[in-house]
Amino acid sequence: MTDVAALEARLASLEARVNALEDHEEIAQLIASYGPAVDSGAADAAANLWEADGVFDVGGHFTMNGHADIAAMVLGEGHQSLIHNGCGHVLTAPRIRLDGDEAVAWNYAFNIRWDAPNERFWIARLSANEWQCRRGPDGWHVARRTNINLDGAEQPRELLRHSTVG
Amino acid sequence: MTDVAALEARLASLEARVNALEDHEEIAQLIASYGPAVDSGAADAAANLWEADGVFDVGGHFTMNGHADIAAMVLGEGHQSLIHNGCGHVLTAPRIRLDGDEAVAWNYAFNIRWDAPNERFWIARLSANEWQCRRGPDGWHVARRTNINLDGAEQPRELLRHSTVG
Amino acid sequence: MTDVAALEARLASLEARVNALEDHEEIAQLIASYGPAVDSGAADAAANLWEADGVFDVGGHFTMNGHADIAAMVLGEGHQSLIHNGCGHVLTAPRIRLDGDEAVAWNYAFNIRWDAPNERFWIARLSANEWQCRRGPDGWHVARRTNINLDGAEQPRELLRHSTVG
Repeated sequence: MTDVAALEARLASLEARVNALEDHEEIAQLIASYGPAVDSGAADAAANLWEADGVFDVGGHFTMNGHADIAAMVLGEGHQSLIHNGCGHVLTAPRIRLDGDEAVAWNYAFNIRWDAPNERFWIARLSANEWQCRRGPDGWHVARRTNINLDGAEQPRELLRHSTVG
Repeated sequence: MTDVAALEARLASLEARVNALEDHEEIAQLIASYGPAVDSGAADAAANLWEADGVFDVGGHFTMNGHADIAAMVLGEGHQSLIHNGCGHVLTAPRIRLDGDEAVAWNYAFNIRWDAPNERFWIARLSANEWQCRRGPDGWHVARRTNINLDGAEQPRELLRHSTVG
Repeated sequence: MTDVAALEARLASLEARVNALEDHEEIAQLIASYGPAVDSGAADAAANLWEADGVFDVGGHFTMNGHADIAAMVLGEGHQSLIHNGCGHVLTAPRIRLDGDEAVAWNYAFNIRWDAPNERFWIARLSANEWQCRRGPDGWHVARRTNINLDGAEQPRELLRHSTVG
């Protein structure tokens, strides 16, 4: 059955390509979920974007380890004060590099705050971000997100440079 | 013909997955069309992103009902003044949830304005957005867009929280 | 073999749809690569997003022709000063129109700079962008990017209006 064998080969090739497109889409959606989760104070939804022991490294400031730390940040006084004063964690569409059950993505994240007296927003932070993602039994999660302010130091440039090699 | 039946089942499964990927892409493209349409003053192109009786609810300000209202906003004095002074309606890549012929998407929208004397832009508005979309005979359109300024009130947080449940 | 012929037709149709989805994804990834390349000073990575003789037209300012010009801009005093003072070239997810081996995409690009004394960022530039892309033997590249500041002039509106016709 040459015809059927040839069709099967074409189908298998197409399945692999659709797998890769879905991986891209799922990782992009994972990252697009972060802003709405933290800006609405949905602590568990935000934490669950990470693996159970996933890491959120806010370069030069602090590191959160695992769901409890991340949820505690969302529920903490600092973050709650931000969102009750008006705040957006605005992330851009990522550059993604897939490698089987792992992936790395890079993008930018704004921390933008409402200035009520002047009726405008100001940009408190613009960070370079690297997302190390992993596919698990229930889909893609963040293993480690590193986030570093673009303040002229070498560290954020080094992070973004990872996207240009390999 | 077991082989052919098995191939047909794999093909049908792949067709469903490609349908979903295309839906994601079309909804993302629909939303990515808004900024270029309104910032270029293309009133009909902007209005046609919505269904004929689609709603654009600018929370706390006003509501547009149907194509004529949306086109009138683009052609109106307020919007024309904005774009002739320099303005960008800058939207982020959305979080999308598909459900058959309906979908909901969430993202952020900046209203950014040129400050000629100081040669810089300022952020007049950063809104939380919810897009209720529907597939019709000629593709996806917006049934209702709700847009609320992230000024610290509960309303935009509630809107974004929808993305974290269900 | 009617069954097999029918399956082959469905498979061929699906292959064409997956080709289009991959083209969208590759063009989106090409554009998402620009910011991380220039903000990390990766001159060759930035230049290689273009075809060998690709054009980067910064409307009203200057035009770069080919890889050497683009790499020289990244390595030049102006750009190096920006990134060492803290800067982000932040691009949005594009509206894309495919046409065989050619494509055009439109998006926004921020040039955002760190203001160390005031511990905040300011927006030096927000531009309308049109990307003319072409598929070559090793994938999609930029044939011409045109970038014009949204300062109220007609030129950026005209550029964005291209996305609404044809």
